[in-house]
Amino acid sequence: MDQRPNSGEHADIRLWLRLLYCASHIETALQSRLTAEFGMSLARFDLLSQLERAPGGLTMTELSRQMMVSNGATTSLVDRLAEDGLLERTAHPSDRRTTIISLTPLGRERFLEIAREHESWVIGLFEGLSGEAKAELLSGLGALKQHLSS
Amino acid sequence: MDQRPNSGEHADIRLWLRLLYCASHIETALQSRLTAEFGMSLARFDLLSQLERAPGGLTMTELSRQMMVSNGATTSLVDRLAEDGLLERTAHPSDRRTTIISLTPLGRERFLEIAREHESWVIGLFEGLSGEAKAELLSGLGALKQHLSS
Repeated sequence: MDQRPNSGEHADIRLWLRLLYCASHIETALQSRLTAEFGMSLARFDLLSQLERAPGGLTMTELSRQMMVSNGATTSLVDRLAEDGLLERTAHPSDRRTTIISLTPLGRERFLEIAREHESWVIGLFEGLSGEAKAELLSGLGALKQHLSS
Repeated sequence: MDQRPNSGEHADIRLWLRLLYCASHIETALQSRLTAEFGMSLARFDLLSQLERAPGGLTMTELSRQMMVSNGATTSLVDRLAEDGLLERTAHPSDRRTTIISLTPLGRERFLEIAREHESWVIGLFEGLSGEAKAELLSGLGALKQHLSS
């Protein structure tokens, strides 16, 4: 949108629109390929990814907080992935009212298979971007992430 | 996620996860405030914003292509905003089979009212981020945007 005349636009709005454009563009590209090649939504992949990073499993609260894509409520995603045998629910060892969600061996295998492809798509999307631009982005996004989390 | 051990993660994945984290975090914050203060979704606000930038109106194809947030099909968003009197559909002057969608005066007034608040929220979210970090981000995202659009 920065190619259009918008001299009245605040610099922070310009920054936010660029950030949103880039994230949406990449998200849409990854979503299309996940659907076409694995019949999987980005939300499901994100959920499996969060569980793979937490070998001891996560409670529903932890899982919801860590999800990065928002489409689809976490509970219904968990229900469908459990039906497919990719994750399981067990009672928390010290609090039986709390449920721990973790990957099944099949879920881990399936996630790793898709993650390899997903990684190659991400590398392809950033290919051709200069090392300098990547370094600027990594540094600037690191500062923004820290700022937003504080 | 870069605070967790993930030494096996490719640098481009790390970059993409930072980008996704920042965009999702800001999007969620803006969505909450839009809902709380104006009862409006980010998708509706985005749609009004695209129309405000196109004084002659847009066709449905142009509008769908320019939408940056993906939740909600554009057609149903247009239907609901038309019911609320915020936009109108007219026949294209040289091709009556094509519909042009544009803001009504009420739609423009409502958009500008919300946009002022939205701008102040965005400024608040980036507040405290150093000028250097903002410059890095603007430059890095500019390069990425150009790369993704090419």
